[in-house]
Amino acid sequence: MAAVSERLKALGLELPEPPAPVALYRPARVVGSLCFTAGQLPFRAGRLLAEGRVGREVDVATAWEGARQAALNAMAAAAAAAGGVDRLAGVVQVVGYVQSAEDFHQQAEVLNGASSLFVELFGDAGGHVRSAVGVAALPLNAAVEVECIFALE
Amino acid sequence: MAAVSERLKALGLELPEPPAPVALYRPARVVGSLCFTAGQLPFRAGRLLAEGRVGREVDVATAWEGARQAALNAMAAAAAAAGGVDRLAGVVQVVGYVQSAEDFHQQAEVLNGASSLFVELFGDAGGHVRSAVGVAALPLNAAVEVECIFALE
Amino acid sequence: MAAVSERLKALGLELPEPPAPVALYRPARVVGSLCFTAGQLPFRAGRLLAEGRVGREVDVATAWEGARQAALNAMAAAAAAAGGVDRLAGVVQVVGYVQSAEDFHQQAEVLNGASSLFVELFGDAGGHVRSAVGVAALPLNAAVEVECIFALE
Repeated sequence: MAAVSERLKALGLELPEPPAPVALYRPARVVGSLCFTAGQLPFRAGRLLAEGRVGREVDVATAWEGARQAALNAMAAAAAAAGGVDRLAGVVQVVGYVQSAEDFHQQAEVLNGASSLFVELFGDAGGHVRSAVGVAALPLNAAVEVECIFALE
Repeated sequence: MAAVSERLKALGLELPEPPAPVALYRPARVVGSLCFTAGQLPFRAGRLLAEGRVGREVDVATAWEGARQAALNAMAAAAAAAGGVDRLAGVVQVVGYVQSAEDFHQQAEVLNGASSLFVELFGDAGGHVRSAVGVAALPLNAAVEVECIFALE
Repeated sequence: MAAVSERLKALGLELPEPPAPVALYRPARVVGSLCFTAGQLPFRAGRLLAEGRVGREVDVATAWEGARQAALNAMAAAAAAAGGVDRLAGVVQVVGYVQSAEDFHQQAEVLNGASSLFVELFGDAGGHVRSAVGVAALPLNAAVEVECIFALE
């Protein structure tokens, strides 16, 4: 496959600015041939793309967009930590937390927003394992939080 | 200890068919000497063994059985990705999500269904670290979801 | 920086007794140059420092203390598994589960109790990635549970 930077362009996607390093933890950290990311929220241009509880105020389509954005943010964080987006060779694991109503059980559909992005960008090497769970509450009332482990070249 | 395949037989257990690979993510993925699995639900022969909220519609014994089944499914996924069950040398980590009533706090007892299976099958090498948490909602209304990292030979 | 054991002393902290090994899982496990820990509760001297639901019966300051204690317990577990606290070279990842009221969204502030401890003790090498989520229920009604991956020398 083409380099990830080329695939991003071909899909009309632009990697966001990596999340600002915060005082107490890092957006991403390299360990050997893996890059772990912090749990990422669906921020785009400074505001949450999906805010509230899925299955109540937030619908699946909006949450799917939020998961995709959070995954893109995780990728930006990993790219910054690893020395460039083309150092990312694939995706090992995605853990997705969905702020869910008690009777909402489509967490998998929501997380497909993250998973489909990675398959589009990395092809077979983007084929990750995934856990999708519905949680009681997320920071800042975000609808979704996505945490990733990337494989490095 | 005997090979894992022998231990399975001795315990009268049969490894289920590995979960079907889905379009957007994989049931398991090998990275170096580890094998990560996706979060597994307590499916047996196509239906959920434990469905609903633990501490309300589901009791601890049923959820324990569900955790054991989910762990067996995780093992089947890892065996398929790693090239056979006897390539699995031990269990590093289990994360268990229990769909819980707000006042249910026996997540550890539920997860013992997964942990005891791994100790029976792998002996000391099955001694994993574990997190057990109670979540608001799980995909398909499953009572429990289990995610594992296996060590490879 | 000084050895971690020296930094603990300088901060007036004492590493607790490592959690007792339980029958079915381990408090910590070394894999290559990493040490995974089990999810740790905020036990101090045999009792939970923070018990109940944050945003309802438990305030942020108490939960922050609980997260700090759980992190210290994780460190004690890792030190015991790795052969001494000075074998711990840094912190790769923290996952923090906060037993949260539905409308409580300051999970990040709570987890800062864990993160600030690691930065104080390990300096730059303590700069970890982190996920903070609000869950429906935790074992024993604990307010917070903290799971870590440490880097070894």
